[in-house]
Amino acid sequence: MVDMQSADALERVREQFKKAAFVADVGIELAGLGPGWAETSLPVAARHGQAEQFVHAGVQATMADHTAGAAAGTLVGADEVVVTVEYKINFLKPARGDRLRCRADVLRHGRTLSVVEARVYAGQDETKPVAAAMLTLAIISAPSRG
Amino acid sequence: MVDMQSADALERVREQFKKAAFVADVGIELAGLGPGWAETSLPVAARHGQAEQFVHAGVQATMADHTAGAAAGTLVGADEVVVTVEYKINFLKPARGDRLRCRADVLRHGRTLSVVEARVYAGQDETKPVAAAMLTLAIISAPSRG
Amino acid sequence: MVDMQSADALERVREQFKKAAFVADVGIELAGLGPGWAETSLPVAARHGQAEQFVHAGVQATMADHTAGAAAGTLVGADEVVVTVEYKINFLKPARGDRLRCRADVLRHGRTLSVVEARVYAGQDETKPVAAAMLTLAIISAPSRG
Amino acid sequence: MVDMQSADALERVREQFKKAAFVADVGIELAGLGPGWAETSLPVAARHGQAEQFVHAGVQATMADHTAGAAAGTLVGADEVVVTVEYKINFLKPARGDRLRCRADVLRHGRTLSVVEARVYAGQDETKPVAAAMLTLAIISAPSRG
Repeated sequence: MVDMQSADALERVREQFKKAAFVADVGIELAGLGPGWAETSLPVAARHGQAEQFVHAGVQATMADHTAGAAAGTLVGADEVVVTVEYKINFLKPARGDRLRCRADVLRHGRTLSVVEARVYAGQDETKPVAAAMLTLAIISAPSRG
Repeated sequence: MVDMQSADALERVREQFKKAAFVADVGIELAGLGPGWAETSLPVAARHGQAEQFVHAGVQATMADHTAGAAAGTLVGADEVVVTVEYKINFLKPARGDRLRCRADVLRHGRTLSVVEARVYAGQDETKPVAAAMLTLAIISAPSRG
Repeated sequence: MVDMQSADALERVREQFKKAAFVADVGIELAGLGPGWAETSLPVAARHGQAEQFVHAGVQATMADHTAGAAAGTLVGADEVVVTVEYKINFLKPARGDRLRCRADVLRHGRTLSVVEARVYAGQDETKPVAAAMLTLAIISAPSRG
Repeated sequence: MVDMQSADALERVREQFKKAAFVADVGIELAGLGPGWAETSLPVAARHGQAEQFVHAGVQATMADHTAGAAAGTLVGADEVVVTVEYKINFLKPARGDRLRCRADVLRHGRTLSVVEARVYAGQDETKPVAAAMLTLAIISAPSRG
């Protein structure tokens, strides 16, 4: 069960998710969210392709990054936001299929940094990821909206 | 000066560059190419944005990745292609401005692996990168076209 | 159950493990081994310290790297060895306690590359790692011993 | 020329360098230091070896990490210290020879994070690194000594 404070955090992540123009442009959708984790999905289109008809690494990386940001965001306060400091991603096998799915889990939530793992899956395969990433995000004060 | 074999390799990279649908969709253009290096540029549009009006990390990463692939591609044979095995990217400061530029240089060209460094610059600043990446690419036999 | 071919591979990894002078010098011991995984342990001594009495990141990284090599080695043929191409490691919290333990699991075993995850644990805590690493290893022909 | 404040920072780094027991145990020595950079050297001994007589990756990584820490340390205040958050290291070719040398340069010095590049060279080769690393360090308040 999710307490009220967490429920607020989840709601904030849902709102922020929509604001990232590039993520909307690529077509990545939030598919699930809870304290310390997030899931996204992407209906694959021809425009996502790499030269050899596979989904481009950049699509997978964008998905891993943004999903990790959502996961980390569920654990921060109302006056904080997360920004990606760095990540590493391994492409494990060609990404084929009509959709991608990404799952991100916070590995370590600190006061100023969050470390998150993300896995990208393609097509119907829910067990063997096509990409695996480890990300470091900074927890910073939210810019004032005044 | 570039010899004939290198000239052929550069021509192949130019052709392959255009074939990546996602890179064309994002709007990344090849801006320069030589043995062991490549440069790309991107006119920034609203759709490239992160929530806070900066260029999304996914755009920068896609640019670093694809530019590194072009740089590595200049050193491989006619029957070979490069694929990204993994990379790490650090986001050094917010990416603002009306264009991004990326420069990639091969750090180590081996028989089966290529290690490439890439830097992304934003706006008019040509000296302080907004992102720095290190990438490992595999050199594999080109898929037959039969 | 482990078949004969796997049993041979495990035996080879055990022998190779002992040959790494630096790993012996640091004091890292093989603690468990199976197809696709390995575990090591290290009795912590004063000489392993960082300035502030914690175990130095270099000790943790050496442990992650060598344990990953053992895990990858369990899946390669008698005429092959693995060498570390690159890795990324996140230090999640200070490593204290009288011993370190490392667990490595192969995430993706390919023909020429192996991708491995490793976690380092400190003291009695078996659930929250002090470090998490993702490693890429190349599978190459064993040097001839002639 | 180095101003007084910088001179103090360099002196603090020199003192802290000696305090890391593991670095002393491995035999890594500070060889040069300036604002935003550091150099170290290591006389290679048999105990540093990997199975095939090359210097173990763990030695190179420890060197890259500690040298980066020294470089980052030159830019922080008297009441601050740096700790390694994470790094990625690529091993470019076998490390042979009777000594290793490492050079680290701060790529981006922020208020709470420092991003550093490090290169490790082996033997007489001063131009082609055997390893290249990119590191993220956190700048934190120095633990009180009371």
